[in-house]
Amino acid sequence: MKRAPGRRKVVGVMGAGEGAAPQDIAAARRLGRLIAAAGWVLLTGGRDAGVMRAANQGAKAVRGSLTIGILPSASASVSPDVDVAIITDMGNARNNINVLSSDVVVACGSGGPGTVSEVALALKAGKPVVLLGGDADDHTFFQRLGGAAIYRVLTPEQAIALIERLWSIQG
Amino acid sequence: MKRAPGRRKVVGVMGAGEGAAPQDIAAARRLGRLIAAAGWVLLTGGRDAGVMRAANQGAKAVRGSLTIGILPSASASVSPDVDVAIITDMGNARNNINVLSSDVVVACGSGGPGTVSEVALALKAGKPVVLLGGDADDHTFFQRLGGAAIYRVLTPEQAIALIERLWSIQG
Amino acid sequence: MKRAPGRRKVVGVMGAGEGAAPQDIAAARRLGRLIAAAGWVLLTGGRDAGVMRAANQGAKAVRGSLTIGILPSASASVSPDVDVAIITDMGNARNNINVLSSDVVVACGSGGPGTVSEVALALKAGKPVVLLGGDADDHTFFQRLGGAAIYRVLTPEQAIALIERLWSIQG
Amino acid sequence: MKRAPGRRKVVGVMGAGEGAAPQDIAAARRLGRLIAAAGWVLLTGGRDAGVMRAANQGAKAVRGSLTIGILPSASASVSPDVDVAIITDMGNARNNINVLSSDVVVACGSGGPGTVSEVALALKAGKPVVLLGGDADDHTFFQRLGGAAIYRVLTPEQAIALIERLWSIQG
Repeated sequence: MKRAPGRRKVVGVMGAGEGAAPQDIAAARRLGRLIAAAGWVLLTGGRDAGVMRAANQGAKAVRGSLTIGILPSASASVSPDVDVAIITDMGNARNNINVLSSDVVVACGSGGPGTVSEVALALKAGKPVVLLGGDADDHTFFQRLGGAAIYRVLTPEQAIALIERLWSIQG
Repeated sequence: MKRAPGRRKVVGVMGAGEGAAPQDIAAARRLGRLIAAAGWVLLTGGRDAGVMRAANQGAKAVRGSLTIGILPSASASVSPDVDVAIITDMGNARNNINVLSSDVVVACGSGGPGTVSEVALALKAGKPVVLLGGDADDHTFFQRLGGAAIYRVLTPEQAIALIERLWSIQG
Repeated sequence: MKRAPGRRKVVGVMGAGEGAAPQDIAAARRLGRLIAAAGWVLLTGGRDAGVMRAANQGAKAVRGSLTIGILPSASASVSPDVDVAIITDMGNARNNINVLSSDVVVACGSGGPGTVSEVALALKAGKPVVLLGGDADDHTFFQRLGGAAIYRVLTPEQAIALIERLWSIQG
Repeated sequence: MKRAPGRRKVVGVMGAGEGAAPQDIAAARRLGRLIAAAGWVLLTGGRDAGVMRAANQGAKAVRGSLTIGILPSASASVSPDVDVAIITDMGNARNNINVLSSDVVVACGSGGPGTVSEVALALKAGKPVVLLGGDADDHTFFQRLGGAAIYRVLTPEQAIALIERLWSIQG
């Protein structure tokens, strides 16, 4: 997790928009709150749906939080809890920007093809990926793909503890 | 597989660059030749490595073939059998262009994170995906993700027969 | 105009879609025909409008011609004379792909903001740019910007002669 | 300048990296400070050079400021005064993201081809563009291109006053 000295730490939270499971939405909301409480920047795909919306809601419940949304297009709905909207007009190709701009990526729940593409692109870019919940078979699949860079946790608190440990290793 | 009337049929072949398995390279070469023999355009990631190089080699052994390479950057090595190089300067975000520009996507072998991202983006875009060889567990993973749009075959000949069937259904 | 040995020569033709002037459309059609007759690949923004449509029409009147369209999105209208459509889903950011994938760029008429962005991006990428017709003041503006890489001609025939000269210098 | 209710106002500052004129660098530093003092987010191309560096320096001299840098690649130098770096890996195609993500774009000095492409893309996207300093001939050129959406001012203070007026018109 290399990062320039003065720059703020960015945690990317990915997951389903439409069709997200209730437990993944609850986890995303709690995760967003914990990320903000830790003083980190929350980065999501920015849309007003599912995991993205919930994570931004959670973060903005914390005073002084900062939420960045990387939007697919100017016409996409934007989560009202996004502070700064980056309009890419690149559709799903923005997924690569999401992972490149995050120091660590958390996939919240099993997600659909979009989330899978983000996990794969993150591994390709050498970013650590934390699977929060989701299917155990998915974990096996990604572990085969990403080796040491892939982690699985069951709660938002465990995700935060893991990210802190990753950062302390980085020094 | 919707496509404008006058336009040529494009088959995208994806797979590992560095570290591709010998049987996947052999399959890609044969697949490229069969695609060209069928009169279809071959589209790949264009680099001079692995599955991309082999598929282009196979296609250019056929007179009148057309090979399009979607390159990550101007400095990437280009397969010498690419007729037209599209220089995206978008790194792995070009993977989305690869799948959007193909009428059907064939993943040759299990591939690494790049190929997985392409399969996921193809399913997200509603494109049919053919897994040629590769791991049976991967097939299970992608089938759960993509449902009816995902197919698995064992030989290049089966891939061609399947694509012809898909096109005949389209009318 | 560096280009890999086996690869085909690509001429990009840029210009207004909606609102193109009749003389620019006529010039684009003639230019497309001459590019194809010279055995070069025609690359455009691919839409079924203005300079793009006319250049593709001209090229496809020549037997054995090849036309590549770099489309902004899957929902854009595609010129019926485009052989291979590259779907970027990147809106106007595709303009950078247009110029990077062309060995030389011809701007047909004065164009609007889109064409100006393409000329500027071409100069930034070190590509030679030929202004065909268009306003003399535009030429002065771009010449100040691009120095030796910018040329102005008044007819499609002059554009072809200039491109041939540029290629012969390249060797 | 349409913007979602809760979202922060973003001013994009564009201009030369290498080869920026001293007066443009001084203007960018002052402009960055004034943007931050007004409570607006500063968005730049993020590199540690020229107008980008100076604008970020100016902004970070203000307590509570927020600076977003839209970087061309993971290997680009990043201004040390960028709070959040968005890594696009899209080279100059990121210029389109810069302008789409800004509510208003200020071009600081005449700039080179990169800045011209950003002004053109901003006009294409319907964003108001403020030319701060720069050549009067450039102004004429862009005014012909952009009509009512293009403004010219001579000092950073005038730029701020103009942006405030544009926002008050928006309501």
